[in-house]
Amino acid sequence: MRKIRIALIGYKGIGRMHSHGYRNVLTFFDLDAIPILKIICGRDRDSVCSARDKYGWEEWSTDWTEVVRRKDVDLVDVCTTNDLHCQISVAAAKAGKDVVCEKPLARNLGEVLEMVRAVQAARVRHMISFNYRFVPAVRLAKEIIEEGQIGEIHEWRARWLTELMDPTLPLSWFFQKDKAGYGASGDIGSHIIDLAQYLVGTVIEVASSSQILTHERPIEGGGGRMGRVDVDDAVQFLARFEHGAIGVFEASRCAGGYRDEFEIELNGSKGTLCFNSKILHELRYYSTMDDKRVRGFRTIFVGNEFHPYKESICPYGEIIGRSDVFIIQAYEILRALATGANLSPDFKDGARCQAVLEAVAASSISKKWEIPDYSQIDAKV
Amino acid sequence: MRKIRIALIGYKGIGRMHSHGYRNVLTFFDLDAIPILKIICGRDRDSVCSARDKYGWEEWSTDWTEVVRRKDVDLVDVCTTNDLHCQISVAAAKAGKDVVCEKPLARNLGEVLEMVRAVQAARVRHMISFNYRFVPAVRLAKEIIEEGQIGEIHEWRARWLTELMDPTLPLSWFFQKDKAGYGASGDIGSHIIDLAQYLVGTVIEVASSSQILTHERPIEGGGGRMGRVDVDDAVQFLARFEHGAIGVFEASRCAGGYRDEFEIELNGSKGTLCFNSKILHELRYYSTMDDKRVRGFRTIFVGNEFHPYKESICPYGEIIGRSDVFIIQAYEILRALATGANLSPDFKDGARCQAVLEAVAASSISKKWEIPDYSQIDAKV
Amino acid sequence: MRKIRIALIGYKGIGRMHSHGYRNVLTFFDLDAIPILKIICGRDRDSVCSARDKYGWEEWSTDWTEVVRRKDVDLVDVCTTNDLHCQISVAAAKAGKDVVCEKPLARNLGEVLEMVRAVQAARVRHMISFNYRFVPAVRLAKEIIEEGQIGEIHEWRARWLTELMDPTLPLSWFFQKDKAGYGASGDIGSHIIDLAQYLVGTVIEVASSSQILTHERPIEGGGGRMGRVDVDDAVQFLARFEHGAIGVFEASRCAGGYRDEFEIELNGSKGTLCFNSKILHELRYYSTMDDKRVRGFRTIFVGNEFHPYKESICPYGEIIGRSDVFIIQAYEILRALATGANLSPDFKDGARCQAVLEAVAASSISKKWEIPDYSQIDAKV
Amino acid sequence: MRKIRIALIGYKGIGRMHSHGYRNVLTFFDLDAIPILKIICGRDRDSVCSARDKYGWEEWSTDWTEVVRRKDVDLVDVCTTNDLHCQISVAAAKAGKDVVCEKPLARNLGEVLEMVRAVQAARVRHMISFNYRFVPAVRLAKEIIEEGQIGEIHEWRARWLTELMDPTLPLSWFFQKDKAGYGASGDIGSHIIDLAQYLVGTVIEVASSSQILTHERPIEGGGGRMGRVDVDDAVQFLARFEHGAIGVFEASRCAGGYRDEFEIELNGSKGTLCFNSKILHELRYYSTMDDKRVRGFRTIFVGNEFHPYKESICPYGEIIGRSDVFIIQAYEILRALATGANLSPDFKDGARCQAVLEAVAASSISKKWEIPDYSQIDAKV
Repeated sequence: MRKIRIALIGYKGIGRMHSHGYRNVLTFFDLDAIPILKIICGRDRDSVCSARDKYGWEEWSTDWTEVVRRKDVDLVDVCTTNDLHCQISVAAAKAGKDVVCEKPLARNLGEVLEMVRAVQAARVRHMISFNYRFVPAVRLAKEIIEEGQIGEIHEWRARWLTELMDPTLPLSWFFQKDKAGYGASGDIGSHIIDLAQYLVGTVIEVASSSQILTHERPIEGGGGRMGRVDVDDAVQFLARFEHGAIGVFEASRCAGGYRDEFEIELNGSKGTLCFNSKILHELRYYSTMDDKRVRGFRTIFVGNEFHPYKESICPYGEIIGRSDVFIIQAYEILRALATGANLSPDFKDGARCQAVLEAVAASSISKKWEIPDYSQIDAKV
Repeated sequence: MRKIRIALIGYKGIGRMHSHGYRNVLTFFDLDAIPILKIICGRDRDSVCSARDKYGWEEWSTDWTEVVRRKDVDLVDVCTTNDLHCQISVAAAKAGKDVVCEKPLARNLGEVLEMVRAVQAARVRHMISFNYRFVPAVRLAKEIIEEGQIGEIHEWRARWLTELMDPTLPLSWFFQKDKAGYGASGDIGSHIIDLAQYLVGTVIEVASSSQILTHERPIEGGGGRMGRVDVDDAVQFLARFEHGAIGVFEASRCAGGYRDEFEIELNGSKGTLCFNSKILHELRYYSTMDDKRVRGFRTIFVGNEFHPYKESICPYGEIIGRSDVFIIQAYEILRALATGANLSPDFKDGARCQAVLEAVAASSISKKWEIPDYSQIDAKV
Repeated sequence: MRKIRIALIGYKGIGRMHSHGYRNVLTFFDLDAIPILKIICGRDRDSVCSARDKYGWEEWSTDWTEVVRRKDVDLVDVCTTNDLHCQISVAAAKAGKDVVCEKPLARNLGEVLEMVRAVQAARVRHMISFNYRFVPAVRLAKEIIEEGQIGEIHEWRARWLTELMDPTLPLSWFFQKDKAGYGASGDIGSHIIDLAQYLVGTVIEVASSSQILTHERPIEGGGGRMGRVDVDDAVQFLARFEHGAIGVFEASRCAGGYRDEFEIELNGSKGTLCFNSKILHELRYYSTMDDKRVRGFRTIFVGNEFHPYKESICPYGEIIGRSDVFIIQAYEILRALATGANLSPDFKDGARCQAVLEAVAASSISKKWEIPDYSQIDAKV
Repeated sequence: MRKIRIALIGYKGIGRMHSHGYRNVLTFFDLDAIPILKIICGRDRDSVCSARDKYGWEEWSTDWTEVVRRKDVDLVDVCTTNDLHCQISVAAAKAGKDVVCEKPLARNLGEVLEMVRAVQAARVRHMISFNYRFVPAVRLAKEIIEEGQIGEIHEWRARWLTELMDPTLPLSWFFQKDKAGYGASGDIGSHIIDLAQYLVGTVIEVASSSQILTHERPIEGGGGRMGRVDVDDAVQFLARFEHGAIGVFEASRCAGGYRDEFEIELNGSKGTLCFNSKILHELRYYSTMDDKRVRGFRTIFVGNEFHPYKESICPYGEIIGRSDVFIIQAYEILRALATGANLSPDFKDGARCQAVLEAVAASSISKKWEIPDYSQIDAKV
């Protein structure tokens, strides 16, 4: 049994979820590897020390530069704010570590390409945490598409809506371009861009429109002083895909009544698939091959023995929640590392998403259709 | 009691619905006018004669040019294919008749402007049958918006989906540009464009993308010969509204599992409203003014004594269907004619929708943002 | 073309719906008969006269005893309060008229048996207006069941919920036993009892529990005086069916948030069917014969060319509302009368429902399982 | 920090969930106690040893009699088949251990009373794992009810449906009376009985109807031999509650299309509450105090800072799944043990549920209303 020793950089919301995944993966899945929660790292000494205890890590540190070089670490998982993704990932790669990094991969395409080059040069494995790819219902959708059950895909629609428009909400890092890179587009839009490229194909052109609604927010601990919001609150864009499909995307922080909810839908020549992120265990499926008299959208409960990741689901049809998705992600990471396989989705997938984000941002300014630039992603080192 | 003598041109699907409205309006509503179903007109002698009997008209004719000039006709209602809208409406106006015309108002902006000029010159009243404005739930949405309950509107999304992608479906008139003017955009998209302008405000700019998926269809009665489809099967477009809101629209005939279903949603600074055309009696409403602990989307059953068009709804909460909407439309028409008021929405509203349709079509070709040209609509005669 | 001359007794809510059905049936359906809306009858001279004009009847009267004997009437349709059902129906039968009567058939089994005997003795045709049998989705359910698609039926559940618990609501006739016979059980429960017997089979035993929550209500026009409510506000009961299925029923006027909404569900050995009365165009269907990987409830849009009563639905998938159901009912009535066929559901079906209502009422008092007494329904005259 | 040393008896589905709860509780909740996963115990040596590794326990054993007496164990958690609940719980209590036991508490009221007496005699703390009480949405419902927001409760309805009717499914222990005690009623019905008593009040009378549909099933590893099913596949029952409310319950294993899904609903004089177990993060709430024009069911996303167990929910509105509920349960257990408080729901609550189960079973045979016998539950030792 190979032991995979993990270092986690970042301990807040998403770091907690990654911890949860590693810690519990063996409870649900059989693996030829054992995850060792070696060390957790963060800026604030008290918080990271407490996180170690709470999440079950062996050690803690406040110095990521040292952590990523440790001999007893095999995998570095980057869950920091976006502005540190590049630096840490590159350092980890240079130290010969396999790297997992949260999305979006970095603040801009330049950083992302640096990261791709670094992992390629170091010949380490790499992954971007587009964890919705691991939702069983999404995986089932992928199977159905690949088998041709919905035919050729003609249209895509996706929207990620959330309510963050209250102007008294503080100026968190994700409202700031130098820390986050993008606003709604990168934060929440990146997931649905990735799912589009995963399920439909490469986005070859976009036309977008974005807006900032709240231009100033109270600085955290700033005694009432205001700071500038310089990233988009909402973006809407059209896309064209490589095989001719057309698509529409929305990512908005101004949608009252939603708590980080997304819906995706694909219309093909033979059927339709829909998924809503707030009902993780369901896939809606319509097939023109059903008898016309009893044809209609099927609501599939994804959790039986014929479904992907059936191990993550209790035998009695118990539903999965958000944290379970990170257990499946941990399984995918460890399974690959145990067998020497590559990780997926990898930094190139992250870069392909980033190329779309750049084109979207450019189009909002140019008011033209923009072509995502994938040219350097697959370039040889 | 004033009698309003009606001539209906066109007797198929939508003509039947208009007939149903006029015939039944007094069953549900109190009016100072009595609709007289004077004459129904169509091309095929046997069919129009049968329609007279079935729908309850007094007379029938196959010659619309004569019908629109009859002394005993007050109102001409145009339910023909789109290619005749302009000709008939203009003739009716010249004959001094009030005119109701189905949507889209005509095949292009030129025809539409001709129609606007004709009704203005003749000083007759005019209406475009954007009947979804008369759905009680939509009217309630309008009230809520106008009272400021959802605050300033920031985002709009609308999609009208239907399944017509089967390539064996015949080449009906609505697949042909010379008869229909537009494809999905005009046929089904026009309704949601109008609702957007009704509920949000004027669309000032659009960027669109469209596609034809099935390029040839069997000619009806053509013994297997194929004819060319030259209108869009699907269109997706972004919009900017006059007060800064952004919006996304879709109209598609390639969406498996849908039967002419649309959803519209408005996100405002204080709340959200949603409406789905397949549940006509419901409005979904979210308000940030509700207590946070019990806040959530409300599903309002629109059918009590505080709601618009309450007369159309039985006292026991009985639901309305599609045909009931035309009864309400007939009520709005007759109420205006009885009191001498103008009709609404009128040809100018139809023209404003058409200006958007033109911009959408132009943008699909130019691949640029296009500005709807409203300049001639409000020009003096 | 045979003309069927109709007399309608009762002009309020439900009389209006029946009028609407007769008046519009030919608009949607082809028939070998023409309905003549001969005469409408009611107690209040002004109201019935107004109803004649509004609903399109030829004549009006305030004397039903005369109306039911008129030579120029073929069919008497009884839409009065329940206390007059028996008297009028019996008189109409004796006068040789075919009879349609609203549900529940009468105030008690005694009256109902008198009605059954009268129509049998007079050899007239007879029908009870259990109009939900004519909803296309319900009819499709019936077809699916009869074809054995859901196998043997094991369980039934039905609930009809509405909100009438506000104690300031006046003492309408349906809160009074001498006028209504029953409370929620007869008023709203009768529909779901009939659907159960239509779709599952004969109810052979019931155990029930009922309650009156508001014991006094303001007398209408009574200047604040209160009158006694002596019928059930809510009833819940268990049932056993002839072939072994078990079932549960609820009829409640105390369910906040509901406007006369019912749901029925059947679980069979091979599948499940569900119907909700607020979405008349949908049937939910689950089949164990579907492939396990993509199995799930299907939401069938009932409105294509393979569905029952397809004529009632527009070719473009337009949804039906409550009033459309009465058009279908009129079609079923006229089709039978035109061809000399019997009407269905008939007074015996009404009596079978009434036998269950009696058993339910008895069980609420006896606190024992009670057996509906069908013995006299099928007795020879 | 007090350490709570736990022994878990049983390692299959539900034992795994309890393990998951203890292991992860500190990740989400602040506590003054630390759970020590001391030892896991089960019959099969290899399986229990593997479970120790997978779930993170320190030791394993196949001898529960020894485990419950260990000095280094504070809490015994019983997750075995129902036939061992009594024996193990009593032994654990006698050894002075606090006890948590899965539901239903045992196979019959006699065993349950023995357990209640044992824990009382030993003055240990005790809990039954009715974990749905810990779902945040259910807890919010409880708050709303206790504040009087829905007024006096008049009606209750609950149904737990699942699909286990396939006759080729093997004769698992839960199809056998000597191992399970009850069928659907105890297995799945017990949860909704407990929720009814938690949210509405004491059930004082029941009338029931049950059925066995599949009388024989293949014996596991029996080479094709069949064994007898002697517990109910489905039960439906009526209930009366102490303060006058009436209720209906269903528990069925014959409901095609459902995977262990329950719905509960309460109608009060001022509003309604609904909860569906497949959308754990939602509570539906209707209030007659809302303005009539915009009144309707609210779909509350239960996961903000004003909601119960907010710690279990990510700050970004991430949804909980079934496994998260066991983390909350572990929190409730450890919080009580850390502070010396009693556990809740306790064995007496379990016994009150069992008294209802006994009355339900009796009523199915006697065909009379039966009164649950609570008399011995609160008797002094």
